[in-house]
Amino acid sequence: MIDLYTAATPNGRKPAIALEEMGLPYTVHTIDLSQKEQFSPEFVALNPNSKIPVITDRDTGLTIFESGAILIYLAEKTGMLWPSDRAQRMDALQWLMFQMGSVGPMLGQLGHFRHSAPEPVPYGITRYEAETLRLFGVLDRQLSHRDYVAGAYSIADIALYPWIALYNHLQVSIEAYPHLTRWVNTLTARPAVQAGMARVNQKT
Amino acid sequence: MIDLYTAATPNGRKPAIALEEMGLPYTVHTIDLSQKEQFSPEFVALNPNSKIPVITDRDTGLTIFESGAILIYLAEKTGMLWPSDRAQRMDALQWLMFQMGSVGPMLGQLGHFRHSAPEPVPYGITRYEAETLRLFGVLDRQLSHRDYVAGAYSIADIALYPWIALYNHLQVSIEAYPHLTRWVNTLTARPAVQAGMARVNQKT
Repeated sequence: MIDLYTAATPNGRKPAIALEEMGLPYTVHTIDLSQKEQFSPEFVALNPNSKIPVITDRDTGLTIFESGAILIYLAEKTGMLWPSDRAQRMDALQWLMFQMGSVGPMLGQLGHFRHSAPEPVPYGITRYEAETLRLFGVLDRQLSHRDYVAGAYSIADIALYPWIALYNHLQVSIEAYPHLTRWVNTLTARPAVQAGMARVNQKT
Repeated sequence: MIDLYTAATPNGRKPAIALEEMGLPYTVHTIDLSQKEQFSPEFVALNPNSKIPVITDRDTGLTIFESGAILIYLAEKTGMLWPSDRAQRMDALQWLMFQMGSVGPMLGQLGHFRHSAPEPVPYGITRYEAETLRLFGVLDRQLSHRDYVAGAYSIADIALYPWIALYNHLQVSIEAYPHLTRWVNTLTARPAVQAGMARVNQKT
């Protein structure tokens, strides 16, 4: 049994999608970010960086923070969505890192300047919108010759999906990126993706 | 033999430090970012995201981009700076992801707003300076009870070092963070860290 401490954000939904795909039982513990619960002593004991998501695996006693680390842990635990072949695994790993280092932070900044900054900052919107569209272009080219970012469906796709699926909220369009659009539609149709996305909306 | 395509940036220096620590022979190929060489067809063939660093391992024929993926590849190749025990490896992995997802992108944005934005954007400076200092605080607390971020010296420290060592350039101080300061001094004294940092200054 996995305990998932999370909230309804793109990073917070990644582990839920993976857990659904892998068929692992889990319990969602919602961290109320509006109440700053991530800064409570109880949560800081789980993640000193005060960020969701965090998992605790009751089978092993391990607590792991950072969504990218959680995805690798679950993939290694189950042997699923993570190639055993080294070359293929490294390919998936580099795209997972691309999500962690670029897609997440840059789309996150766009979301901040669009919706959360207490004053209008046109430079911030322009900067992060341009970078978001550049990243969409990178993914579109990659997906023009592969079904999924690293060939077979993997945790790299799961890491990317909740961020890319946010495009309406970010007020950007994926229309100019046909291969990325096809990939979004393919993932959106997966029952486990739907279940994982929905599960983290619940206040349980 | 490893071919390292890189430039004198924090991400660009991480693999050089790791290669020096591991004693692996490597050749540095400098990518001139001021000439936008990262957008050349030759470089895009190595990394579709047009970012340094990239390595090619002549022993295996593999090309890998994203500094975090490169560090894991080298650690797995050599069995060095990466715990074989799962719990310890996951601990190092989460701190490596913390660097990839937070320290790199946020300090990178501070650098942009300090030095590269074509207009003064006070909101950007304030936002990323605050986040940089918050991250310094997280590391300082972690290093108050551990020698290195994940216990033993690992690729997580190597990923963090070139970013944290940039504090003067970012016009922030680490003086208020004694444990982080001690860690910076410890790494700065390592011959392999010095060699890796210096190697990527060369135009070879």
